[in-house]
Parts: sequence; C-alpha cells; structure tokens
Amino acid sequence: MSLLDRIRHCKRRDAARFRRFVVAGLPVGWVAHRLADRLRGFPRVFAVSDDTVRVIDMLDGFESRSRAVGDAILRLREEGWFPGWRNEAFAVAPTFYAPPLLQIERVAARAFGVRCYCVQLNGIVVRDGLRQTWIARRALSKPVGPGKLDQIVGGGMPIGVGLRDNLIKECAEEASIPAALARRARPVGAVAYLAQHGDICDDEVLFNYDLLLPPDFTPVNADGEVAGFELWPLAHVKAVLADTDDFLFDVALSLIDFLIRQGIVDSSDPDYIEICEGLWSAPGAAAGSGA
Amino acid sequence: MSLLDRIRHCKRRDAARFRRFVVAGLPVGWVAHRLADRLRGFPRVFAVSDDTVRVIDMLDGFESRSRAVGDAILRLREEGWFPGWRNEAFAVAPTFYAPPLLQIERVAARAFGVRCYCVQLNGIVVRDGLRQTWIARRALSKPVGPGKLDQIVGGGMPIGVGLRDNLIKECAEEASIPAALARRARPVGAVAYLAQHGDICDDEVLFNYDLLLPPDFTPVNADGEVAGFELWPLAHVKAVLADTDDFLFDVALSLIDFLIRQGIVDSSDPDYIEICEGLWSAPGAAAGSGA
Repeated sequence: MSLLDRIRHCKRRDAARFRRFVVAGLPVGWVAHRLADRLRGFPRVFAVSDDTVRVIDMLDGFESRSRAVGDAILRLREEGWFPGWRNEAFAVAPTFYAPPLLQIERVAARAFGVRCYCVQLNGIVVRDGLRQTWIARRALSKPVGPGKLDQIVGGGMPIGVGLRDNLIKECAEEASIPAALARRARPVGAVAYLAQHGDICDDEVLFNYDLLLPPDFTPVNADGEVAGFELWPLAHVKAVLADTDDFLFDVALSLIDFLIRQGIVDSSDPDYIEICEGLWSAPGAAAGSGA
Repeated sequence: MSLLDRIRHCKRRDAARFRRFVVAGLPVGWVAHRLADRLRGFPRVFAVSDDTVRVIDMLDGFESRSRAVGDAILRLREEGWFPGWRNEAFAVAPTFYAPPLLQIERVAARAFGVRCYCVQLNGIVVRDGLRQTWIARRALSKPVGPGKLDQIVGGGMPIGVGLRDNLIKECAEEASIPAALARRARPVGAVAYLAQHGDICDDEVLFNYDLLLPPDFTPVNADGEVAGFELWPLAHVKAVLADTDDFLFDVALSLIDFLIRQGIVDSSDPDYIEICEGLWSAPGAAAGSGA
C-alpha cells in the first residue's frame, strides 16, 4: 500500500447500494436498501421510494421529527439493528452551520449515512530539534477500530457542543491534557471523506488541530478508550501509515494532512499532487467516481 | 466578496469554449476554438477536430514535437498571437512526474491550457509573539497581474529545474533571500485550480512553502519584478483578501491555505468547510460544475 491507497480506501463507494435520506426536502444522508425496505414499516415516520427515504412532511419540527424517528430507531434496535449503541445524540442538518432538523443516536446517524463531524488532535513534541507526535492505541472495547492506532485525541461532535469545547473535553477524557494546555491547540484545516463499509456510508468531516506539548508531558487515558500511548518520530508515522493497516482508516487522512504540513510527505513522493487533492475531494466527485 | 468567492473565482470555467489538447494520445491541455481553428493551417503539426487538437502522431519524440510545435508558435507570434512572450520553456506532460512530451514557450503553454506548476513562499516573521508575513507588490511591468499584491516569492517552474532549486533561485531574484536561508523553507502542501479567462484556460498547481525569516531580515527585489514589500499581520492579509481584489487571483489560494494552517481562517467562518474543500477540487469536478 501507499499513502495514496490510504486516501483511496476512504473514498470507495458503490452509490447504487444507497438511497438518499431526505429531511424537510434536503438531502442529509444515505440509507442502504435493506434498511430502507424495513423503514417502509413506519409509514407515519418515513416515506420510502426506490431512490429516497424521506421523513414525512407532517413531521415539521425538530422535536416532532426527533421523537418519531427516535421511536422507530428504538423499535429497530430491539430487532437487532444498530449494534454498538452509544447513547450520544448527533445532529442531522444539511450543513455544519445550519440549525439541526432533528437529532438521532450516534450509531443510527452512521446507519442513515448522516454527515458526522470530528475533532482530531496532533500532539506534537520537539525534543533535541526532532519533531515527534503522540500516537494512541485504541482500547479493545472500542466499537469502531478496536486495537487500531490513532492520534492522541479525537472524537465525534455531539449535538449542541462547540468544536473547541468538545476538543477540550476529549483532551481531558482521552489523554488527561489540562484545559489550559488544550486551549492552546491551533485549528489547522479540515479533511473529508465519503466511504462505504458494507451497508454503511460514512460521510465525515475531520476538523484538525495541532498542539505543541511540553517535552515532559505524558498523556494518561482517563475514560478507558485508549490502551496506551507512544511518542513517535514523524518519519515512523509515515512509514507505518504507508506499510501497514495499523492505523484507524480515517485517522490516516488527518495524519497525512499533518505530515504534509510538516514537510514529511513532500514532492519526493510521486503521488504528492494526488495525495493533496485526495484529502479533500468533493463528496459529489467521490460519489461519481465510485458509482 | 468572501474568501470562498476568491476560491470560486479560481474555478470558474466554461468548458464549451475549449477543445482538448492531446499529445501522444494523452490529454495535456485546453485550446480555445479560435486558436484551434487557426491551428488547422499547420496540418503537418496539428490534427484538428471539433473537440480535439492533436499533435500528429508522426511527430513521435520530444525533439521533433518541440521543434514542429515551436515553429508553428513562432509563426503565430508574428501574427500577433501570444502577447507577453517570456522566453521561458515549460514542459508539456501528462503529469508532473512524467517525462515531458515536448517543451513550449511559457506564454504559449498558457494559451494551450497546459498544466503549469509554481512554487509559492510564505515569508513569516514572529515579532513580540505576533506572526506577520511579507507581502510583495508586483511591478507594473509584469505581464500578469501588474501592481497586484503577492507573496514574498513565487514563480513558475521552467523545464528541467527541480522545485527546491527553482524556489532558491526565485528567493534570490525576487527578495534577495540568501540560499542558506531559502534552503530552510518547508514544503507544506499544494493547491490547484482550473480557471478560464476569456480564451485562456489556466490549469495550475501551486506548491506551497513556509519560511521563518529573522525579524531583522528585509527583502530587497533584484530582478525588477517587485515594486516593494510590506510586513503585514495575518489578520490584515485575511481582511484584504476578503474585502478587495488587490491580491493576484491565484495567490489568494496559496494565502488562504496559509491562513488556514495558521489558524487565522477557522471554523468561525461559516464557509470554512467549503473553503477547505475548494482549495483542492479535482479539475474534473471543476470542469463539470463549470460546464
């Protein structure tokens, strides 16, 4: 594999497997046919056609939609749908900045192909002029990517929480980074992908942050989601990304962006231009190439 | 205007105005219909159809193609085509890393819509903890963007010169940055665009570099291409980019990338995700949206 293969892995999708999920006339997700067919059993909540799943227009407010869709999802959960229930509410909205049309359990948001948002942190240490970064190994109990390598801190955006507040909360929970230190994190851009995994369409935007950590700081996990941390030279991150599947697949995007900004991935890689391009390809374009 | 408008300005294109320029069976550029029709007058060099301009297959090597196409271009120049002749040879190739199929005068490369490559440098100064950057004003004699604002150093890639060597050469010529200092520049990524200006289709990749300059360094132009330099706080760069047309249009892409990486453009801008996305949209995608 190459770094470019990591990016391509995040963009693979067979659009024919999904129908558009539509709320208030706005496309907000992707539902696999099997789930769409089951949703026909809830005609007071969903109007299902061959190419769309719509929340019915009579449900015309945030509260009514959230309640009706939530009840249907709970019924389906009893039938075995949505394994890995998280008890975290995610917003469903046409854009990150638009008011949410409804809220939905995190694992159901994924099954409905709703665009999700994450904060991702690079914890940087400079020792003897050499730049290194803290790498986490995800706990074996994590529902997604157990045992995979990860950045020092990362987390999905629950509804009603700001990016920076969520980052500070995750910094405390995942790595015991004090709030005063976490506040120094600098936003450095965003990357996105739209990837298919079986009947799931992952549509995610990763907001990236860099934080220079004191050389004597050592992360300690506080919420049981991290098995351990190691400090890695950046060239080692690049090698492991390119040569192994050890990193969580989408963390690769955020890390490649980091390695580009640090000059570790540069034009000596013959895929450089395609890598820069691939970190942000429009979901529409990705859908086209995957269809 | 907004920062996103700056990006959109670099992606506007009416694909119906152009035919594909094809060499050795590979698409390498975009030729406007008026030029394509004139190229019918050179049947020993070009095979012109309604949707392509091909260098004829009998010209099957770098030297023979460069000579035949170059002779045709010189004839056209005598007729008034290709104003702003540069006497700089650019490579024509299917990718940045592929061996060139021919070489062509820089201004003709632009008229044939050949993908060009530039190095762009952010000259950063930290004074009293405040980050600033050197901004150049282009000389009134420049054929493209006279009098416009620019980064401290930037330049197109002539054939046969490496990125870093070209950057060091441009650093000396444009800002009298000594080679030992210029070598410390860090590659930080690339942005791209495909934009139409009348009968010209600009297809460019900008390789971005950051260089931390000593607070007591003052750039001095040596080649007459810069009218002067000013040191600007990054927030001022952002404001002038958003509110005026003062910057050269494509330098805006490189500078917005810089401001994102520096955390000056962040998620408080409701266009943030679209801005990050727009800095790299696949030329194919841009062509689709512009057609």
